[in-house]
Amino acid sequence: MDFVETRLRVRYAETDQMGVVYHANYLIWMEVGRVEYCRAAGMVYRDLELEGTLLAVAEVNCRYILPARYDEEVIVRTSLGESNARMLRFEYAIEDASSGTALATGFTKHVFCDRDFKPRKLPEKYRALFGLA
Amino acid sequence: MDFVETRLRVRYAETDQMGVVYHANYLIWMEVGRVEYCRAAGMVYRDLELEGTLLAVAEVNCRYILPARYDEEVIVRTSLGESNARMLRFEYAIEDASSGTALATGFTKHVFCDRDFKPRKLPEKYRALFGLA
Amino acid sequence: MDFVETRLRVRYAETDQMGVVYHANYLIWMEVGRVEYCRAAGMVYRDLELEGTLLAVAEVNCRYILPARYDEEVIVRTSLGESNARMLRFEYAIEDASSGTALATGFTKHVFCDRDFKPRKLPEKYRALFGLA
Amino acid sequence: MDFVETRLRVRYAETDQMGVVYHANYLIWMEVGRVEYCRAAGMVYRDLELEGTLLAVAEVNCRYILPARYDEEVIVRTSLGESNARMLRFEYAIEDASSGTALATGFTKHVFCDRDFKPRKLPEKYRALFGLA
Repeated sequence: MDFVETRLRVRYAETDQMGVVYHANYLIWMEVGRVEYCRAAGMVYRDLELEGTLLAVAEVNCRYILPARYDEEVIVRTSLGESNARMLRFEYAIEDASSGTALATGFTKHVFCDRDFKPRKLPEKYRALFGLA
Repeated sequence: MDFVETRLRVRYAETDQMGVVYHANYLIWMEVGRVEYCRAAGMVYRDLELEGTLLAVAEVNCRYILPARYDEEVIVRTSLGESNARMLRFEYAIEDASSGTALATGFTKHVFCDRDFKPRKLPEKYRALFGLA
Repeated sequence: MDFVETRLRVRYAETDQMGVVYHANYLIWMEVGRVEYCRAAGMVYRDLELEGTLLAVAEVNCRYILPARYDEEVIVRTSLGESNARMLRFEYAIEDASSGTALATGFTKHVFCDRDFKPRKLPEKYRALFGLA
Repeated sequence: MDFVETRLRVRYAETDQMGVVYHANYLIWMEVGRVEYCRAAGMVYRDLELEGTLLAVAEVNCRYILPARYDEEVIVRTSLGESNARMLRFEYAIEDASSGTALATGFTKHVFCDRDFKPRKLPEKYRALFGLA
């Protein structure tokens, strides 16, 4: 699985007074893309968490190319950049759905941890889904 | 204690493309006002929650009078409208800090519950703070 | 057209530390439902705004019945409660998509205005869509 | 001016079901810190925008060290990393106000533009405030 595409429509709540999407909201779209990537790979993130493993965010980066606008449909293309039993790195390309114009690119790094934020490994049953032995 | 005033500065993130504050954010300001009301009354909400009692939102209402704008300082005036051992009702008046112009009024109703959202009573040690026997 | 149903999946960003959806986010879901109602009726809200007419929020109300949870699919059922050339009132029922359990009900009242928030009427070409002569 | 410190109290709305602050909200705190940096330097960002110059976000980066928690007071220490007439880069250190523990670090890059997002230079009257000739 190379990448997973998730389609979103920009909400009014996501805009700011520049007339475009407020920049922090792209991180929320990345979250939506990442969850759908995991679901497509065979891991429902909600279940992982119910089983006691959290995927905490360690780093985020986003480069903004062109502003996204209200009511536009955007596509978040999510791929797995790097993975080991302790961490995952996801990469994202966000584009306008109708024109294919690139809006932003970014990545997020995550570490597996328990409910007290102590590092732990991804449970074995999920490892193959992320290309791990 | 009749009311507690909390002062906030409007964040860019809180605006939308109408050039004013997005309406749902007033509910967040009410949350800030309510928490400061409780703190002034002698109850730190964080501690109540750590002790196992949540104050879940049962109803919200907000009437918008004039739009709040970016970088403006607003005052949230919070008062206790109704209270018993099972619920609290807070009332809010939101105004522009420099002119005193009314921006919005509203109320929120809350019920005490445990972590599983089963109704419970406010612990006795806090009752007098809200005028309860 | 009696009502329009919009389906949403709860985002992690929408939860709070009670482990459920933060109450202000239901207002954003109402916005999404309302925009889809208008689109289904034949009015793209984005276009209305580009033409110079805004639909400003005058009042919101929400009653919370059961908490919505992360990754759950919810349905927002939006209907038109009241309408005239100067205002619209929408009503909402929010439910869990898989069980049909009611999560919340609410309404929003809106007034038409120009970009300076002066009251105006809904342009004639859109009136029939909302049952107005 | 080396840096400007801004103090914030974590809102309930800013938490998520991990029991800590949702990661995208740190970007909003950076915005608050940046606006206060500019104000302390002598430029009210709201005025800059009213005069027709926007400071659009070109890139954001945040590394998360320890989770911030509800009702905690945090300090955002904002400094200017790089500047020229076309762009500014701000750097941030976010820490717990009571213990001084580091919570996160990050940077944001911005470009000056007009309301149509065409690049422009920072108006001359503001340049000296950012160490520009």
